[in-house]
Amino acid sequence: MDWIGQIHGMFQMLYATHARTGEPYGAALPSTSLADLDQATAQASTAFEVWQASDAATRAHLLQGLATALESERDTLVTTADAETGLGMARLNGELDRTAFQLRRFAQLVTAGAAFAHVDDPAVPGLPPAGHPALMRVRVPLGPVAMFAASNFPFAFSVLGGDTASALAAGCTVVVKAHNGHLHTSRLVFALIQTVLTAQGLPAGVVQMVQAEGFEIGVALIQHPRIAAGAFTGSTRGGLALQQAARERVRPIPFYGELGSINPVLATPTALALGGEALAQTLAASIALGCGQFCTNPGLLVLQRSPESVAFVQALVTALQAQQPHVMLTAGMRHAFDAGLVAQLQAGARALLHEPVADRAPRPALLEVDADPFLRHAVLRDEVFGPSSLIVWYDDTAQGHQVLHAVGGALTVTLWGMSEDTPAHRAWVRTAASVAGRVLFAGVPTGVAVSAGQQHGGPWPSSTAPFSTSVGDAALDRFLRPVAYQDAPAWLSACQGQPC
Amino acid sequence: MDWIGQIHGMFQMLYATHARTGEPYGAALPSTSLADLDQATAQASTAFEVWQASDAATRAHLLQGLATALESERDTLVTTADAETGLGMARLNGELDRTAFQLRRFAQLVTAGAAFAHVDDPAVPGLPPAGHPALMRVRVPLGPVAMFAASNFPFAFSVLGGDTASALAAGCTVVVKAHNGHLHTSRLVFALIQTVLTAQGLPAGVVQMVQAEGFEIGVALIQHPRIAAGAFTGSTRGGLALQQAARERVRPIPFYGELGSINPVLATPTALALGGEALAQTLAASIALGCGQFCTNPGLLVLQRSPESVAFVQALVTALQAQQPHVMLTAGMRHAFDAGLVAQLQAGARALLHEPVADRAPRPALLEVDADPFLRHAVLRDEVFGPSSLIVWYDDTAQGHQVLHAVGGALTVTLWGMSEDTPAHRAWVRTAASVAGRVLFAGVPTGVAVSAGQQHGGPWPSSTAPFSTSVGDAALDRFLRPVAYQDAPAWLSACQGQPC
Repeated sequence: MDWIGQIHGMFQMLYATHARTGEPYGAALPSTSLADLDQATAQASTAFEVWQASDAATRAHLLQGLATALESERDTLVTTADAETGLGMARLNGELDRTAFQLRRFAQLVTAGAAFAHVDDPAVPGLPPAGHPALMRVRVPLGPVAMFAASNFPFAFSVLGGDTASALAAGCTVVVKAHNGHLHTSRLVFALIQTVLTAQGLPAGVVQMVQAEGFEIGVALIQHPRIAAGAFTGSTRGGLALQQAARERVRPIPFYGELGSINPVLATPTALALGGEALAQTLAASIALGCGQFCTNPGLLVLQRSPESVAFVQALVTALQAQQPHVMLTAGMRHAFDAGLVAQLQAGARALLHEPVADRAPRPALLEVDADPFLRHAVLRDEVFGPSSLIVWYDDTAQGHQVLHAVGGALTVTLWGMSEDTPAHRAWVRTAASVAGRVLFAGVPTGVAVSAGQQHGGPWPSSTAPFSTSVGDAALDRFLRPVAYQDAPAWLSACQGQPC
Repeated sequence: MDWIGQIHGMFQMLYATHARTGEPYGAALPSTSLADLDQATAQASTAFEVWQASDAATRAHLLQGLATALESERDTLVTTADAETGLGMARLNGELDRTAFQLRRFAQLVTAGAAFAHVDDPAVPGLPPAGHPALMRVRVPLGPVAMFAASNFPFAFSVLGGDTASALAAGCTVVVKAHNGHLHTSRLVFALIQTVLTAQGLPAGVVQMVQAEGFEIGVALIQHPRIAAGAFTGSTRGGLALQQAARERVRPIPFYGELGSINPVLATPTALALGGEALAQTLAASIALGCGQFCTNPGLLVLQRSPESVAFVQALVTALQAQQPHVMLTAGMRHAFDAGLVAQLQAGARALLHEPVADRAPRPALLEVDADPFLRHAVLRDEVFGPSSLIVWYDDTAQGHQVLHAVGGALTVTLWGMSEDTPAHRAWVRTAASVAGRVLFAGVPTGVAVSAGQQHGGPWPSSTAPFSTSVGDAALDRFLRPVAYQDAPAWLSACQGQPC
């Protein structure tokens, strides 16, 4: 970077927007220059030397302190986030609870030794292949992680969200690229973090943050030589660009991108005959929840042509009409929602519910299409981010399987009506598991439990790393790389997988 | 592919070469056409429907049957492999033992339930974030795997090698791209597999094989829509090309590439004072073993300038001079070895032992360079495949750490002299672990135990997937993707992670 670029960066300012009014919100904020970015990564790198060697108690103490700090500033944080995102106080209070919960959960995990799990494989005397030297398989933290915050979770997938919590628990430091959709919320959370770090005598570089418009800072961050991994939650386009940047480094690094997903819901006529009315209410609420701005939003309904399915769809239209989605996160997303519906209609989908309005809050939409055109037109498999869903009608079971396979990769597939053990149901489970990271047999895919059994990440395009999860206990594994110590000296063996 | 291409493929033939004489070896073999490839993937895909649902006993029975079959044809296989590779009967008998051992080891692992490991996470009543539905995290096999055989292990990393064994144990089927360096050995092993499959009543598509010159078939295989993952052991150039092809698919798939590694060996003056003569003998044998054609060949010696180091190097030169490497695997590799040494010399390395010969068997070589030029010239960090090593001299400890960091990614780092617990030794362990998948504290990196604690795969460029291993029990994990079942019906929960 030349000095003109530096000066340019120094004088750029960022302006937040009020989500409901579209007016400017709060004071202008300084933009991170490339020189600032270099400084942030230098701090994260220096802090890594300390943090990678921290013990479980130190890590747990920090994570717990961060959870408490979040809660102590609840009112200010939630009010600010509501102004910047329009997600509403109830949802944002719940999201803050969840964020504190996952910080404390990783504190518990690291206390229980999850980051120090190891395989002790003592020497076996004799010649190979049966005989072998002593091996101890441990895991080492990767280094400073670049974390890209999401727009739709200003707490849970942002500065102090699950990626940051799991990276810290693993012994990595973090440089967050804040999302421009909630600049002030991010600043407040970052200030809280710094207060906790200072109070606990930890270096400021354990968590650093950058804020800027455009792609330049994000690409510079993921390509910075001091950065050892990237974690991203957001759009397919943004994720692919960052993945490409990570791959084009002199030394490519792991990149965990959680991108788009259309989350098919398949319901058998039997399930709909038994409880179609209630399912329609539940599904309508899930489609409209948070204005449909969830990566697990049910964007595809896969239904067999039958009287039960037709009755269900009628009930769903009625239930959706009663929903009142709130404003979308940004004007850009609001525009993209309308454009996405138009693209589906142009590709042959028919509108069952489509009420274009000029408001910042859209109306829910429901479209339908037959399996044949769905299988032919890839645009019908694109995610439409917002409160809408597309029904795909299939005639025979084989065609239904084809529809799921055509989706390719999804965070979730929901199967309603699999309670009996039949070959047909086993086949649906196999197909669903082959395209998704989570298969639900009841309820709706929105709402992702932070739990031991969770898997949030499926085959491409829903994730760039389908073996990993960004939610749940296994999220820790993304930031630890296995290393085998062969014939380790006694002092190193005694560490038992803990940092030495 | 058009019909001209089909006919072209049908009439192409492959010719094997005798490694020691360079003369043609055995009968001409038909080359796989693109139509044959499509047929092979179709068989692998159909067989996957059966094999993914197989139980532990069925998988173990196949793996054991394959091990027994290999041993029953030992003489023919080893004789053929020796003619095609020149690796010698002793080594090849040992490698066959190892290959049978790892097939049986995966049989044991799958019997012990490794492929069906799951996390049972019962429902917790109450509201989120603490309350959550029942989750069961299982793992599902990916689908048909494209396996690219290595030149330097005609059994252990070839048609029935570790990648095939671990993929079969995971419930995946396999399409092997045989290596052109041992065409007849591959044919014989493939025929054995087919006999065992038939005898056990399993479809031929559980393992398929393709053979052809050039890159076209390999790229077509990794890009075939029916292929779900790729596993490769070989050159950085070949691995990167296949990785790129895997990424350019409409749906990218996991690609496990084990590429080049220069495997630094660092010895403290104290360690060399204690046992330098014996270490020199051991290291010389490791450098020349198998004509240096191992991915774990010690290609870099990192030594502090000291009288002990100088004495060690003198002993190493003498020990290397006494080594008699056998012929290299192919004429191309033989040429590349000479060229690699010339490139190091041109970049400023000095020859301590360099005896260019026109023979198919090269002479061992030892070069040296100071840390400064090593840090400046990337070519000095390139792998030279063959019986040679490069000494890097450093003055102070900080420079030694810089040298290891400059290597970037390696399968192994060996540290001699770390027996005492000192801050300096802890720092060496941290640096070594940050660049390698395996850190040795005694012995030499050649010889990779097939064991519970093994990790064979380090940061780029030694591996494209440093979280995985191609040797040892954890190799199984590469072919299983986690899936969470939420609110699974009773019949599915009862499967406990086994295929339903």
